[in-house]
Amino acid sequence: MHITSDRRLDDGTLERRFTLGDVPGILWTSGSTAVPAPLVLLGHPGGLERMYPRLAARARGTVAAGFAAATLELPGSGDRPRSGAAERARADLRRAVQAGEPVPDDVADRLILPLVEEAVPELRAALDALLALPGIGGSVGYAGGVISVGVRLALVEPRIAAAVLFAGSVVPRAVVEEARRVTVPLHVLLQWDDEGNDRQAALDLFDAFGSAEKTLHANTGGHTGVPEFEADAGNRFLARHLR
Amino acid sequence: MHITSDRRLDDGTLERRFTLGDVPGILWTSGSTAVPAPLVLLGHPGGLERMYPRLAARARGTVAAGFAAATLELPGSGDRPRSGAAERARADLRRAVQAGEPVPDDVADRLILPLVEEAVPELRAALDALLALPGIGGSVGYAGGVISVGVRLALVEPRIAAAVLFAGSVVPRAVVEEARRVTVPLHVLLQWDDEGNDRQAALDLFDAFGSAEKTLHANTGGHTGVPEFEADAGNRFLARHLR
Repeated sequence: MHITSDRRLDDGTLERRFTLGDVPGILWTSGSTAVPAPLVLLGHPGGLERMYPRLAARARGTVAAGFAAATLELPGSGDRPRSGAAERARADLRRAVQAGEPVPDDVADRLILPLVEEAVPELRAALDALLALPGIGGSVGYAGGVISVGVRLALVEPRIAAAVLFAGSVVPRAVVEEARRVTVPLHVLLQWDDEGNDRQAALDLFDAFGSAEKTLHANTGGHTGVPEFEADAGNRFLARHLR
Repeated sequence: MHITSDRRLDDGTLERRFTLGDVPGILWTSGSTAVPAPLVLLGHPGGLERMYPRLAARARGTVAAGFAAATLELPGSGDRPRSGAAERARADLRRAVQAGEPVPDDVADRLILPLVEEAVPELRAALDALLALPGIGGSVGYAGGVISVGVRLALVEPRIAAAVLFAGSVVPRAVVEEARRVTVPLHVLLQWDDEGNDRQAALDLFDAFGSAEKTLHANTGGHTGVPEFEADAGNRFLARHLR
């Protein structure tokens, strides 16, 4: 891991940009190393620079709640090399959503499964590097989307102790089957009126999770309308499980 | 309103039992009258003495969050006169639930609609009396079941500014229609594995509510398994709306 820049935000949060191989990422901490802070990986739909304002706001809240926060650029997003197959699948998804049609299974598979296959090992490698830094330690949480990435990570990575999952993207059938084997505590966010997301599919996914503790928070509003108070609720959930 | 007893609980909460006409009730406050505390009406399935331990625990948390809390015995419950028609409807409901069958519309209507008709005016009369006491004032919340009582109260009583509703009882079709006209902020609790409650009906009711701000908190577990952390979440919701 190579730290490429660091600066203090106005609330005192220390923001460090890094690269891990070719993958850019951002780490936010309090800057204090006196007590190791559990790490929360912030998920997002791809495009670190485009998402930066919202990610930084989430990260400040996460750090204020006593955690470190980190995020990686997704494969095929931002400045990372595009995959022709993923771009075609994304165009097919957009067509289906705009036509108000259900997303065909093969489109969901072509878009999401290669992303999961590539992103999860990168996140696990980032964990190795981030947990070696001073001031970061203890168990790890995942918070955000892409939900299929969070599901796979929660299933295969034993350092993940709890996850806040945003049910805002299409989920392949294979991921629903994986969800049955997830056992860590989950806090699932659903936007009830998400224009491009199948509400029933999200409820079916919530039902499928094998976790003994799972909570669904569904709110009125569209895809980007998650209420501000949910940031606080998610951090309270993580605080119960990451200490 | 006639105060029949008062005592201090070990955490300092002042508990006063009262009667309003023939209806028994309990009021919990901090005991301080320096700053008027918004009032939260605690709903329950009936049987004040049977429910007392759980109600008192909820009330302590409500008072600790800065509110006053009050509850009334429901018509036909506890020591109040039984209605033969309601008892027959309750037996019919139990039969349907035990047989794993859907609750017939007429059973839901016979059980719930007369209860709503009788309970809501009693709760409104209690508000008149309780809000005249020193140390209680501002807007009012409702928290708990029977959800059909909460829906009607939220619809007809302008002093209700927000409601935490427990989706744990059968809901007549007429109440779903009333729900469409409810506009106050809502926080709806659903037990995902509630043995005697139709999950899809609860989701349909949540969908029906007309409120611009509504949040559903669904948790794993049966009817009586609402997680402890939901008490805190409900009070945070009320704190956003009852100040």
